[in-house]
Amino acid sequence: MDPRPIGVFDSGLGGLTAVRELAARMPEERIIYFGDTGRVPYGSRSRETIIKYARQDVAFLRSFDLKSLVIACGTVSSAAIGLLRREQDLPIFGVVEPTAHRAVALTRNNRIGLIATHATIASGAYERVIRARDPEAQIFAAACPLFVPLVENGRTRPGDVVIETVVRDYLTPIRDAGVDVLVLGCTHYPLLREVIGRFMGPQVALVDSGAEVAHEVGRWLSEHDALAAPGQVGGCRWYVSDSTAGFRDLAAVFLGRPVAEPVEQIDIERY
Amino acid sequence: MDPRPIGVFDSGLGGLTAVRELAARMPEERIIYFGDTGRVPYGSRSRETIIKYARQDVAFLRSFDLKSLVIACGTVSSAAIGLLRREQDLPIFGVVEPTAHRAVALTRNNRIGLIATHATIASGAYERVIRARDPEAQIFAAACPLFVPLVENGRTRPGDVVIETVVRDYLTPIRDAGVDVLVLGCTHYPLLREVIGRFMGPQVALVDSGAEVAHEVGRWLSEHDALAAPGQVGGCRWYVSDSTAGFRDLAAVFLGRPVAEPVEQIDIERY
Repeated sequence: MDPRPIGVFDSGLGGLTAVRELAARMPEERIIYFGDTGRVPYGSRSRETIIKYARQDVAFLRSFDLKSLVIACGTVSSAAIGLLRREQDLPIFGVVEPTAHRAVALTRNNRIGLIATHATIASGAYERVIRARDPEAQIFAAACPLFVPLVENGRTRPGDVVIETVVRDYLTPIRDAGVDVLVLGCTHYPLLREVIGRFMGPQVALVDSGAEVAHEVGRWLSEHDALAAPGQVGGCRWYVSDSTAGFRDLAAVFLGRPVAEPVEQIDIERY
Repeated sequence: MDPRPIGVFDSGLGGLTAVRELAARMPEERIIYFGDTGRVPYGSRSRETIIKYARQDVAFLRSFDLKSLVIACGTVSSAAIGLLRREQDLPIFGVVEPTAHRAVALTRNNRIGLIATHATIASGAYERVIRARDPEAQIFAAACPLFVPLVENGRTRPGDVVIETVVRDYLTPIRDAGVDVLVLGCTHYPLLREVIGRFMGPQVALVDSGAEVAHEVGRWLSEHDALAAPGQVGGCRWYVSDSTAGFRDLAAVFLGRPVAEPVEQIDIERY
């Protein structure tokens, strides 16, 4: 048993889709979330800047006594997880490995689609993990840099002509390649699940990176006897780097529930 | 005569549309440009964070001996120019005043359209300046938060189905209101001039905030005998807060010419 909280961070609020899954699987766990809303998005920035920001995010979260750390951000998981693991003495979970493994387990025709930010695609991280497990896999990848601003501007509903147009523009080559699995390689993308799923068709399984990392964290904590005690009162504490105004409304969309807990702004540049 | 350089900054590279106009009008002037590419965009952030970032941008530029400062960013001009002017002892030019005055001068039916970022629209800055000069003016405003990511992802050409769809979605109410002037209230938007112009029709004049602030700076320097000496060799120095890789390609799009001068990355969080 380990009563200490789990730290979770993302460039913005997309990582709340992972928190949602963590809380659903392990309601006794305490979660401390940091969203770098003052500097979102990360996915179009250079690897060097992503690493600098990720180190600050981790430094802030380590001001709490954590039992593990979850990088609920496809971009940071792709660009910096190896380096952060070497620098930090606690278990760090990213979205790439569990999500890639799930995609390999699900495909029947070895044709896997991958959508993510520019930085994630450029890193080649998903390809490396997928090919290590399934050298026969063919991967059809597309950077979808407009999906994050579309989600953050509430353009997620089927029928919205803008999101429908962008989905068609980005995903037509992947659909036409005949993939049977599509990795949603950014934690913002589960909010587009319905519109993406309709476009790809029912024969294509969508793999949600937030759900996969939550599953992996639960498995690891269980295997290492580090789960919270049954009956512990779980819950979340929220920290952001921009103003907290508007946080509750947008966060509720990602979390799928109203946000009652306090939210606090911190100066991430100090870390 | 004043040989010292003009400092120009923007949240990213949109401000280069103002530099382009400054250099075209005053080729003898030396320009020092800072683009906060590590934290772009500003337009969806809180006023408090915009002010914090703008102060850092100004502090960096003031490490040079400048004769004036240009805020080539609609968001900062709207949210922070009064405050920055009180804090700084050099002439500061923003895009809002000259652009609003030009719109008032151009309209014949007193129906003025305004497109800009969320923060600019929310500030009410354009409305205040327009109404002060033309109390009869009716202003039809729309926040266009997807235009900046679209421009930064190269989605600017007529015929691109995504930009055409977004333009129609944002601008239909303004076109239907019968405006005869449309203010492009963000320095990224001149790259959308062709697609916006085609949608609005030839009867609507587009006012480019980069061009207007360049005109204003030239007029002020001339009136205050602060222009560079004829024959001074002008030119630009470029500074950014993210990696310099890729700067030349994107900057050339905004500048309308190849970028030959050196570009340097700085740590804006230190300022």
